Amino acid sequence: MGIVSIITDFGLDDNYVGVMKAVMLNINPQLEIVDICHNIAAQNVIQAAFLFKNSFRYFPAGTIHLAVVDPGVGSKARKAIIVKTDEYFFVGPDNGVLSPALGQTKIKRIVEIKNRKYFLEPASKTFHARDIFAPVAGFLSKKERLENFGPAINDFKRLDLPQITAKKKELKGAIIYIDRFGNLISNIEKRSFYDFVANDKFKIRFKKKIISDKVNNAYCESKKGGVLSIFGSFDTLEIAVNQGSAKNYFGAKECDTLEIIK
Amino acid sequence: MGIVSIITDFGLDDNYVGVMKAVMLNINPQLEIVDICHNIAAQNVIQAAFLFKNSFRYFPAGTIHLAVVDPGVGSKARKAIIVKTDEYFFVGPDNGVLSPALGQTKIKRIVEIKNRKYFLEPASKTFHARDIFAPVAGFLSKKERLENFGPAINDFKRLDLPQITAKKKELKGAIIYIDRFGNLISNIEKRSFYDFVANDKFKIRFKKKIISDKVNNAYCESKKGGVLSIFGSFDTLEIAVNQGSAKNYFGAKECDTLEIIK
Amino acid sequence: MGIVSIITDFGLDDNYVGVMKAVMLNINPQLEIVDICHNIAAQNVIQAAFLFKNSFRYFPAGTIHLAVVDPGVGSKARKAIIVKTDEYFFVGPDNGVLSPALGQTKIKRIVEIKNRKYFLEPASKTFHARDIFAPVAGFLSKKERLENFGPAINDFKRLDLPQITAKKKELKGAIIYIDRFGNLISNIEKRSFYDFVANDKFKIRFKKKIISDKVNNAYCESKKGGVLSIFGSFDTLEIAVNQGSAKNYFGAKECDTLEIIK
Repeated sequence: MGIVSIITDFGLDDNYVGVMKAVMLNINPQLEIVDICHNIAAQNVIQAAFLFKNSFRYFPAGTIHLAVVDPGVGSKARKAIIVKTDEYFFVGPDNGVLSPALGQTKIKRIVEIKNRKYFLEPASKTFHARDIFAPVAGFLSKKERLENFGPAINDFKRLDLPQITAKKKELKGAIIYIDRFGNLISNIEKRSFYDFVANDKFKIRFKKKIISDKVNNAYCESKKGGVLSIFGSFDTLEIAVNQGSAKNYFGAKECDTLEIIK
Repeated sequence: MGIVSIITDFGLDDNYVGVMKAVMLNINPQLEIVDICHNIAAQNVIQAAFLFKNSFRYFPAGTIHLAVVDPGVGSKARKAIIVKTDEYFFVGPDNGVLSPALGQTKIKRIVEIKNRKYFLEPASKTFHARDIFAPVAGFLSKKERLENFGPAINDFKRLDLPQITAKKKELKGAIIYIDRFGNLISNIEKRSFYDFVANDKFKIRFKKKIISDKVNNAYCESKKGGVLSIFGSFDTLEIAVNQGSAKNYFGAKECDTLEIIK
Repeated sequence: MGIVSIITDFGLDDNYVGVMKAVMLNINPQLEIVDICHNIAAQNVIQAAFLFKNSFRYFPAGTIHLAVVDPGVGSKARKAIIVKTDEYFFVGPDNGVLSPALGQTKIKRIVEIKNRKYFLEPASKTFHARDIFAPVAGFLSKKERLENFGPAINDFKRLDLPQITAKKKELKGAIIYIDRFGNLISNIEKRSFYDFVANDKFKIRFKKKIISDKVNNAYCESKKGGVLSIFGSFDTLEIAVNQGSAKNYFGAKECDTLEIIK
């Protein structure tokens, strides 16, 4: 047994994800492998980091999380790491993709992957997911000792997701992710929102217009095609259009500013 | 052990499906989870109901079927239900998505999901698939007793898929689904077709033109690019183009009329 | 237990792959089913054969490989076969899709699938993946004896992938596959390349222009947007653009010529 989650930007048009799974099953045929998402925009480390941060904690304790969005593959500067936390193992390139998730965990140990004994040889310079990360995850699932993979290191690269800024009369956030439905997911968390708003009246401004003065409780509170603001699946403020696409409605894109004003 | 099938409109571009699976595995790590389809058009309950009706019966007895296309998520009017039949469990919103499948089964019991003990708390208003349906499926797979999830109810919402109409000289159906290959799948079942045609001559009319006076036995009976009418994978009359797309050839769309005339 | 790999052109927009899996699990609920790829271009046997050849050997010994890209489905001319090799079982239509992979194995036995006892009846004329190949794979995983499926045959249909031609001063290959990232994957294998180049200087010509006089070791050896030539994930010469798409950069397509000149 053992569960491995995978998030990559490999898409599903090629054989890359299938081959990663084959490599893991060749080492541990009992593994259960779960796809988080493979359609991260190519080389978009931030998008992957955001989705991963919002996914990993739903998995059972003991899960080995594999996150591979890796523009620096094959370079010497980019390390490969394993991070053991109180609940999980994290495996991936040390380019920040793991870091927003790791910021929510209790870190026990960090190891740089160096021991070629665990690689699929000859390891390519272009596909470490297959040749390094997948076999390492496979061996980890078989309880291989962490220190065998390489030397302990003290830290990992951090990647900061866009932050909110709160002034007295204005809370400024950003659209950090747009999902399949065209929902605009911001980085304004429920707690930050209510700390700012307190008991005051507020307005939500997007694309230079006031779009709402309240937070909705369900998509269906608006008529079909109506604009909604709601704390959504990521537990952050989300702009949606009931049974439509807020992305298309507003011509919105990632990084657009979203403001709460008093 | 235990098998869960899932059909949703969540797509594969986000982490929604992966997180649903994580939630289920967190409750029952032995589960085998099988995707039926996640690329149902957003909020298209009819499309999901049609594909689901044509999928569920291939699964082993005891499978827990999870169907979540849920435009009414978060509203009080929309119930969440479990239906136990002679062979399966069905879990989903009570908006009709399950109903064409249920029409083919022997129903044993219907329960409204009410007991928050089985929810992932705090349950969101936007993602019941993760917070309610997935954990309920997980607990069902661990043989939790049906009555524990909520009160028994007497009925579920029905959704009628488009029906055929048969007159003396004319059988009128519709294109109900268009697949990846551009095959036009109608709602004219083999039995209805032959009951109507009997031993008479017939013609097939589509888009105001006679396109055939016979039913083919295989795609390759036509030359490449030729139009075919065939009882296809859904066991209904299907219009196809050999190694091409009937959708593009005819400029066809769902709900277009297909007629058999004598 | 038992592992089945699947590669098809069914895509993920319909229920075809899900239903195939259901049929297999109905026969053997312990199966682990792994997707290699389902987004092969419709009816593109060569593309599937190429990806499959580059995938199958990563799976554990004993894996049952199922490859279904099947423009001849339903015709009498097209056989259905099982090939047992020293390490794997291969199941699919006898149209060449398996053959480049089989060329790398030691073949033990070939059987034509004939015994309807193993079919899902009534078997359709359009979906042998569900009605014939999936159940056969399911029964194979339960150690059903090979001879029970049908008569032994002596050979299978071969499909030749595009070959390279080497002259004294010129090695001519082709782009055989373009992946999600827009990487142009050629059929020039590392060994053929170095046999030709030996210790001489060389240039790489594509689209009538010299694009490089060396082979890179990692994508990041070029600046962002720069052209690279590298032995990639398929272990063949690949033209790439660092953090960009060589496909778009060059307006390239499959079958474009790639030349090495001395």
